[in-house]
Amino acid sequence: MSRDHGGNLDWARSRWGGEGWIDLSTGINRVPYPVGQVSPEAWASLPGQGAKTRLLQAARTAYRTSAPILALNGAQAAIQLVPRLSRPGLARVLSPTYNEHAATLRAEGWQVEEVRDLPDLAGADLAVVVNPNNPDGRSWQPSALLHLLPQVGRLVVDESFADPGPELSLAPVAGQEGLILLRSFGKFYGLAGLRLGFVLGHEADIAALERMSGPWPVPGVALEIGARALADASWARETTARLAGEARRMDDIALNFGWQVVGGTHLFRLYDTPDATAAQDRLARRAIWSRIFPWSPRWIRLGLPGNEAEWARLGAA
Amino acid sequence: MSRDHGGNLDWARSRWGGEGWIDLSTGINRVPYPVGQVSPEAWASLPGQGAKTRLLQAARTAYRTSAPILALNGAQAAIQLVPRLSRPGLARVLSPTYNEHAATLRAEGWQVEEVRDLPDLAGADLAVVVNPNNPDGRSWQPSALLHLLPQVGRLVVDESFADPGPELSLAPVAGQEGLILLRSFGKFYGLAGLRLGFVLGHEADIAALERMSGPWPVPGVALEIGARALADASWARETTARLAGEARRMDDIALNFGWQVVGGTHLFRLYDTPDATAAQDRLARRAIWSRIFPWSPRWIRLGLPGNEAEWARLGAA
Repeated sequence: MSRDHGGNLDWARSRWGGEGWIDLSTGINRVPYPVGQVSPEAWASLPGQGAKTRLLQAARTAYRTSAPILALNGAQAAIQLVPRLSRPGLARVLSPTYNEHAATLRAEGWQVEEVRDLPDLAGADLAVVVNPNNPDGRSWQPSALLHLLPQVGRLVVDESFADPGPELSLAPVAGQEGLILLRSFGKFYGLAGLRLGFVLGHEADIAALERMSGPWPVPGVALEIGARALADASWARETTARLAGEARRMDDIALNFGWQVVGGTHLFRLYDTPDATAAQDRLARRAIWSRIFPWSPRWIRLGLPGNEAEWARLGAA
Repeated sequence: MSRDHGGNLDWARSRWGGEGWIDLSTGINRVPYPVGQVSPEAWASLPGQGAKTRLLQAARTAYRTSAPILALNGAQAAIQLVPRLSRPGLARVLSPTYNEHAATLRAEGWQVEEVRDLPDLAGADLAVVVNPNNPDGRSWQPSALLHLLPQVGRLVVDESFADPGPELSLAPVAGQEGLILLRSFGKFYGLAGLRLGFVLGHEADIAALERMSGPWPVPGVALEIGARALADASWARETTARLAGEARRMDDIALNFGWQVVGGTHLFRLYDTPDATAAQDRLARRAIWSRIFPWSPRWIRLGLPGNEAEWARLGAA
């Protein structure tokens, strides 16, 4: 893939060398949900209906919804499929944001306009909002999004970073026509290697996406671990509390570096620096990998360290 | 999904009840490659370029090819994407065979003709051959397929069951224009829950499929375990020898039941019975699950048992 992403640690390793890299280039929680035992069946068998049903039930409970829902191999898989739900037309993407939305829409023949504010999305055949937004953490209240809904053909709300802030989520009202929600499992639960995500929406859209995704898009191990993790409300509560404190701790370190806080979520923070490339280089020389953006000479995004040793290395960088 | 498949053990459980089901309804090896330890990184991180490269190198060696190759979440994922490589036209599928080929082509707007013999594929914009074929084990020599190649727009050869018979594989000559090969990891290695498969083909086709599949279609655990398994040539050799003997053992049992051998591969056997539904019911009452086909009143397909206890139960059924 030619598009740039976080998570490209191999590249950083080859560019700067060194050992023991701390990857803060993504918004993936570095304290993963404990994987535990996996049943032999989850590895060996074609994923069955029972395992799928257990996962979807756990997801509905965690996301506080009874809407039609589909599990896919990552929210990314949903981003690849949603542009195919209807004939291409005019899409508007609230930007800057995760670059795969505009890119996959263009690849599927959509005309894409990147707009700055929520009301600018009105009139689009398909509108995309990442809520809260990556990388700047801008967020929109459910009421504002529901107000927009009748003004666009389809409203895609990517809630990949919404787990720690469920009050922003439209999941409880999902299921109505024209509204598509994307949820990521791997980021908050720290298991991005599992490739698990969800789409919630109107029954007909979910059925169409299920047809497109085929019979077994999600590995058995992801069905099993995902079901266990999503059912663990106390882990989610404790993790949210921990992340909230650590986001503040990260901002303090950044202020010490002389950076300004632009925003962020509980899973990543965005800073304004005099020179993003220099800031990334400074951290990379200490084997700490960060995310900068081809379209911004000043912004740097950091995920949160996973333990005290990592915090110490970051603080001393 | 409304299409019927093997692997629907949940349904059999609810229909016949009972415990300790032996699932012979698929062609998945019931003696899986030992999963072993999985690195924490494989669960937690976005799958990186290094892990992907290691997997693809192991796959190229195992499949004896240097052709462009893409890893996907199952050969099924390739079946979903290949119809999108060009505008829909006339597709011909050598039938009867795995039903997803015709179904996904039709869903993508192709006119699909199911034909009986290899030469009947000539003239199609896209032709599909499963080699060796599922469920009857019919097979075609590479020379016959290469003779057909210039007579069709694209030739898709699904080699999902080719691991135990590499002499049939076109992988060594893959890479030329118009030829697409599909390989399944999960069947021979007994790890269908991992969801891992490959497409080999011409550079431009593989690049197009990679764009469609997005940046991280395959879980990190699949990249890691797949690389390890595909590099283990002695396991593959021993497994092939074991399966060859067991296929004969299975045929002896079937003959004892009064069934006739239609054909099959090292991973499944197809039998002609007086009444397929009655044959399936007889086994299901002993909690042994099999595969019958809506289009055949007489055929039953069985995978191979995984241990002596399972063989004993089958023999006594």
